[in-house]
Amino acid sequence: MPATPDSSLHSGLDVDLPGHVERELTAFLAERREEAERIDESFARAVDALSGFVLGGGKRIRPTFAWWGWRGAGGDPDGPEAPAVLHALSALELIQACALVHDDLMDDSAMRRGSPTIHVAFGERHRTEALRGAPERFGLAAAVLLGDLALAWADDMLFEADLPGAALRRAAEPWRAMRTEVLAGQYLDVLTQARGDESVEAALRVPRMKTAAYTVERPLHLGAAIAGADRSLVDAFRRFGADLGIAFQLRDDMLGVFGDPEVTGKPAGDDLREGKRTLLVALGLEHAEASGRADAARALRAAVGDPELSEERVAVVRELLVDLGAVAAVERRIEELRENALAALAAAPVAEPAATRLAELAVAATRRKH
Amino acid sequence: MPATPDSSLHSGLDVDLPGHVERELTAFLAERREEAERIDESFARAVDALSGFVLGGGKRIRPTFAWWGWRGAGGDPDGPEAPAVLHALSALELIQACALVHDDLMDDSAMRRGSPTIHVAFGERHRTEALRGAPERFGLAAAVLLGDLALAWADDMLFEADLPGAALRRAAEPWRAMRTEVLAGQYLDVLTQARGDESVEAALRVPRMKTAAYTVERPLHLGAAIAGADRSLVDAFRRFGADLGIAFQLRDDMLGVFGDPEVTGKPAGDDLREGKRTLLVALGLEHAEASGRADAARALRAAVGDPELSEERVAVVRELLVDLGAVAAVERRIEELRENALAALAAAPVAEPAATRLAELAVAATRRKH
Repeated sequence: MPATPDSSLHSGLDVDLPGHVERELTAFLAERREEAERIDESFARAVDALSGFVLGGGKRIRPTFAWWGWRGAGGDPDGPEAPAVLHALSALELIQACALVHDDLMDDSAMRRGSPTIHVAFGERHRTEALRGAPERFGLAAAVLLGDLALAWADDMLFEADLPGAALRRAAEPWRAMRTEVLAGQYLDVLTQARGDESVEAALRVPRMKTAAYTVERPLHLGAAIAGADRSLVDAFRRFGADLGIAFQLRDDMLGVFGDPEVTGKPAGDDLREGKRTLLVALGLEHAEASGRADAARALRAAVGDPELSEERVAVVRELLVDLGAVAAVERRIEELRENALAALAAAPVAEPAATRLAELAVAATRRKH
Repeated sequence: MPATPDSSLHSGLDVDLPGHVERELTAFLAERREEAERIDESFARAVDALSGFVLGGGKRIRPTFAWWGWRGAGGDPDGPEAPAVLHALSALELIQACALVHDDLMDDSAMRRGSPTIHVAFGERHRTEALRGAPERFGLAAAVLLGDLALAWADDMLFEADLPGAALRRAAEPWRAMRTEVLAGQYLDVLTQARGDESVEAALRVPRMKTAAYTVERPLHLGAAIAGADRSLVDAFRRFGADLGIAFQLRDDMLGVFGDPEVTGKPAGDDLREGKRTLLVALGLEHAEASGRADAARALRAAVGDPELSEERVAVVRELLVDLGAVAAVERRIEELRENALAALAAAPVAEPAATRLAELAVAATRRKH
């Protein structure tokens, strides 16, 4: 009788978590599609665009961390609560859909996951159907409303998961903190760009809010809270998550400048064009100033936030950032953060196989190519 | 000993509901402000803008209907659950804040409740502080994120109200339906405008979704569900709410063209400039066509959706709408809907004083001046 490798070592839900999360999302969105159709066929078509976005890609990293947070705090993947927990944690992907759809609108990004962004796609639809008014305004409205819908549905999905009442009440603290923190982080990101704040400190404050809490720390906290973890385990998860989350964002920043568009699904250098104030850029500027390379500092400043930045100038900026030692410094920082995170994890009483899986995720999240 | 009139007839929470709702919102927002300050001072200042918006006006009509839905289904204003119910229902104002902030952004409205809208105010802040990039994009980002925050906090406020578990589970159905329906209604509103659909049918479909369900029907449903109303009472409330909600929106449409800016807080004629497809306009066009007044139809069509429409031309449109009988037809429709609503209410087993208060609200909501 053929057996899949390792099948005896794992419980069913532990293996292929992204697949399980996608199945939950697919079922949830199909049900909502039916409701939307009862409201209005045109609205149902708009919901299809949101579903396509949610199901069209993504690494499902937040539900994955949340799941291992739950498992690491003693959650039983074969127990009667496991399906409800999986359903509840999958709701994190709907918050993420809201964040991405609204972020793309705010940054006026054209592409995401290799496809047109929502506001661009609805602007196109407006042009194709020769509707009235400005296509951009129609795209804006669709992106605002579909992002709102994803945010409202995230709460619905968590609530309808039918967790035991006590578990749902414990989930409230991380769920609530996470949603406020990610919005705070996005606002500070926008404000830091608008202020043209070039400091290393600002470049670290934004990812701390925007990603660290939202991507690793709070999902782990959420999973652990649902399992009823005690404060010391939650604190250890949060230390692990805070360091790993920053490392994750720093890797993202590197990919935003050095990533392969074929793999990332976004044009290379878009982060530069949008004027993102990353640690990579802040360190580049700091090193240029410290070594008296005024020309290099000028070239960097001119590139960051220039929407017309050419491929050739992106290549020049890349060379500069390597040459100034900014790339090496960011890589060192990523490594330090990962090591700190792994140390916090090793010191915590995390149940196996969660401890091993979280350590593997820490390595994968900081070495990934997209 | 002096006594306030009627004090012996009412329980404390029944009197001055808007005041009670504002107290709940003030306390909730003050707590959130402290949390925001722990995150970042700049974020706390952005939260202040949202709080100013939420507390700066509004008739608190949705929590008021929800309260009387709860009372009419047997909720006891002196019982131990009443404070939690008041807190939960006040969350409706945060959904409304999200809807208004995002609506103003989508319509690019400059004024709301006599003050600059959020996206305009943050665009101004950007100019005053001489920040980088386009002020409009900064205003857009702030409005998107503060609207999102209001939507997320609405769920937090409902959840933290500490309703009994069974009541919270009963609240889920109307809460969930309402949030999807209001977003569907807003999308259909945008789409109907973009399609330039002039039909009376389209002009009635949008308010049915956008306002009827959201403003009266679902808040009543929510209050009744929390009280544990049976299906027949819920159905009666929903019939009352559906008719009254449309009448409410038709009154809004009238005020959008004929209202006194001093009282409404919005420039007269803005609905015309934005190209809103109201029943008033649809009937004006229908009557003009039916009576062969091609000139009048042309003038109306030219006015609706013209962002440069002058005060003088607004005055001409007003005269036309009266002259064509559209105003009288809408007034008749409002009256019919109100009478139907009152009949549905009278036939239902609604506890006093809720039945009387709801009938009074029905009259006030359809005769109001702002």
